Amino acid sequence: MEFRPSEYLINVRQTRPLVHHITNYVTVNDCANITLCAGGSPIMTDEGRDVLDIASVAGSVVLNIGTLNERTVDSMHLAGTVAHSAGVPVVLDPVGYGATSYRTSVTHDIIERVHPDVIKGNGGEMGMLVGAGGEVEGVDSHMESDDLVDHMTSYASRYGGIIASSGRIDYISDGRVTLELGNGVDMLSSVSGTGCMLSSVIGAFVGANGASVLSVASAFTAFNIAAEDAIHVSDGPGSFKVALMDSLYRLEPSELDSRVRWCEI
Amino acid sequence: MEFRPSEYLINVRQTRPLVHHITNYVTVNDCANITLCAGGSPIMTDEGRDVLDIASVAGSVVLNIGTLNERTVDSMHLAGTVAHSAGVPVVLDPVGYGATSYRTSVTHDIIERVHPDVIKGNGGEMGMLVGAGGEVEGVDSHMESDDLVDHMTSYASRYGGIIASSGRIDYISDGRVTLELGNGVDMLSSVSGTGCMLSSVIGAFVGANGASVLSVASAFTAFNIAAEDAIHVSDGPGSFKVALMDSLYRLEPSELDSRVRWCEI
Amino acid sequence: MEFRPSEYLINVRQTRPLVHHITNYVTVNDCANITLCAGGSPIMTDEGRDVLDIASVAGSVVLNIGTLNERTVDSMHLAGTVAHSAGVPVVLDPVGYGATSYRTSVTHDIIERVHPDVIKGNGGEMGMLVGAGGEVEGVDSHMESDDLVDHMTSYASRYGGIIASSGRIDYISDGRVTLELGNGVDMLSSVSGTGCMLSSVIGAFVGANGASVLSVASAFTAFNIAAEDAIHVSDGPGSFKVALMDSLYRLEPSELDSRVRWCEI
Repeated sequence: MEFRPSEYLINVRQTRPLVHHITNYVTVNDCANITLCAGGSPIMTDEGRDVLDIASVAGSVVLNIGTLNERTVDSMHLAGTVAHSAGVPVVLDPVGYGATSYRTSVTHDIIERVHPDVIKGNGGEMGMLVGAGGEVEGVDSHMESDDLVDHMTSYASRYGGIIASSGRIDYISDGRVTLELGNGVDMLSSVSGTGCMLSSVIGAFVGANGASVLSVASAFTAFNIAAEDAIHVSDGPGSFKVALMDSLYRLEPSELDSRVRWCEI
Repeated sequence: MEFRPSEYLINVRQTRPLVHHITNYVTVNDCANITLCAGGSPIMTDEGRDVLDIASVAGSVVLNIGTLNERTVDSMHLAGTVAHSAGVPVVLDPVGYGATSYRTSVTHDIIERVHPDVIKGNGGEMGMLVGAGGEVEGVDSHMESDDLVDHMTSYASRYGGIIASSGRIDYISDGRVTLELGNGVDMLSSVSGTGCMLSSVIGAFVGANGASVLSVASAFTAFNIAAEDAIHVSDGPGSFKVALMDSLYRLEPSELDSRVRWCEI
Repeated sequence: MEFRPSEYLINVRQTRPLVHHITNYVTVNDCANITLCAGGSPIMTDEGRDVLDIASVAGSVVLNIGTLNERTVDSMHLAGTVAHSAGVPVVLDPVGYGATSYRTSVTHDIIERVHPDVIKGNGGEMGMLVGAGGEVEGVDSHMESDDLVDHMTSYASRYGGIIASSGRIDYISDGRVTLELGNGVDMLSSVSGTGCMLSSVIGAFVGANGASVLSVASAFTAFNIAAEDAIHVSDGPGSFKVALMDSLYRLEPSELDSRVRWCEI
């Protein structure tokens, strides 16, 4: 199997996909800016009447439940449904899945009724979602189960979509192909919203390249290699976030192919 | 005709106008901080009962429809009306005008019922608003029509207010006087919310100086010259935004008069 | 009396308390990030059904009325009540108290019905709240009354909680012990949301150490000494905010004890 993330990044920059976000108000600015730095064009709107006009013409739709409420959950269903019938890929980030019963039930509703093309969370969220266990405290969670990959793979197979978990090691599976990725730095967990930002970058990559294990893996790789560059010019979480933006914006596609750490499982 | 933007900036810093924003949740933090860096004092509130107390005593009101919904649109009408009857200048930034029918109709409602003193958008938004054509994709838009200035001038003349468009070349007209401005850097389009931030700076300048072609042009000039300074200490969009704040905060008024690139049309 | 803020900071980092915020959308990202930099774990949610699950298991709850509306005020009451009965400390930041009648009445409602363990505002807000006078313009306010400390002390004594005011000189009282603190830099007032960030840091400190004059004073001290470090690597408000995050994250606990400027009144 071959994996050339450079090609996916080049495509993002050439097609500049419109990434429609319905997302949380905590990290939304970073999501908009990282989308631009990846090469996409962000639009954030959660008002129903806007959503009808935007989701159908977008390159992709990113649904993030970080600060969900009834009004925005309704808009997520609307956007997801409109996108789905227009053939626009939908990415779901179930932030805090397992931390509250409301988040858990909203996530399952979206999965059943919208059927997102990509579901991406951190290891703890995904471990609970795919039935591998794990624990969630607030929106931070950790998953150290060896079972995670097995459960993700079989979940993805039954689900018929792409399942991705982030952490020191990232896993991405569509049930047939499962990749393990090893780029990134620990500092990512000391900045609020790096998971949300990664979902935005995935939105840009699937908007330009379609949703596949390789397009999602390319998004992870670009984001995490940018983080590796950023850590060298950082003095802490504040300057790291600034440098992460700069690094992704300046990332040479060829760097991706030579530096990606991946294997097929 | 004379144009000394330094005097307008000095006035902002001396009077420290309270700039009441009803704005989007994507770029609101940058709007608050750039208002402080310009010399104003920001307050953000969109709750009706707050709005009544704030809009009437503010130096100016900035209405930005970037993430509009019914509740905040109602508050915009309330704030605009209260401000108008108290003689407080109102600035409208019709973010994404033309991208959705809801944004277009909300914009026209505000223009008709509130009659903002200043309407400022990017070239694509303003081109569509004043009838010069152009195209809008999401909240990014581009306008390369030679007709823009003519349409803006005649729209401003009919409207009886100040019409401003941002881009590589900025245009500002009240129907009688029309200015072309040439400061700024391309990097501004790689950061989310620079248009929103400019509207906040305009809010500070009209709050201190009243709404006029020259006060609005001074805000553009201060913001764009700060951007020219920022680009020299930036490695990408992340550090550019940080430096833009620093540069505007440190901007020497005298720099404005010697570096402004402007002409009357 | 002894005051060793280092011990309180060490405790925050070791226990990593979950700090549940119901806060404003202007500064929420900075609040999340500063909580992480202090050593806590932030979660932001204002939806009623989420609040029930989170507030009871959190280390602390921070209520900030910076952009209040009816829905979020209801959630603040719910979160505060749930936290209170679970023994979770509650911090109230009455942003803009006195600037609008709505904020004033919401603040009094929360104080009466939730009875927060800590009420912290800037000097102007607290001066008005405790009856010492002062003035508020928007969310910025100033308080130069010599009466402030006396009024704070007697208010705290009647109230049975901790009252804290920030400014060039900070005051913290529970009615029996009153501290005066002198760390910090003027640049803090040129960045939007430094007051909100301080409330988040207080949330982390009382989450790990319980609510007391000394735990609140330790939060002030850590935040203000980080600001003193940040000013040396800043060129203005933009880079100062970035450096403030870095500095708090990197702060050596032992620095606190040697650099704290405090006295008991």
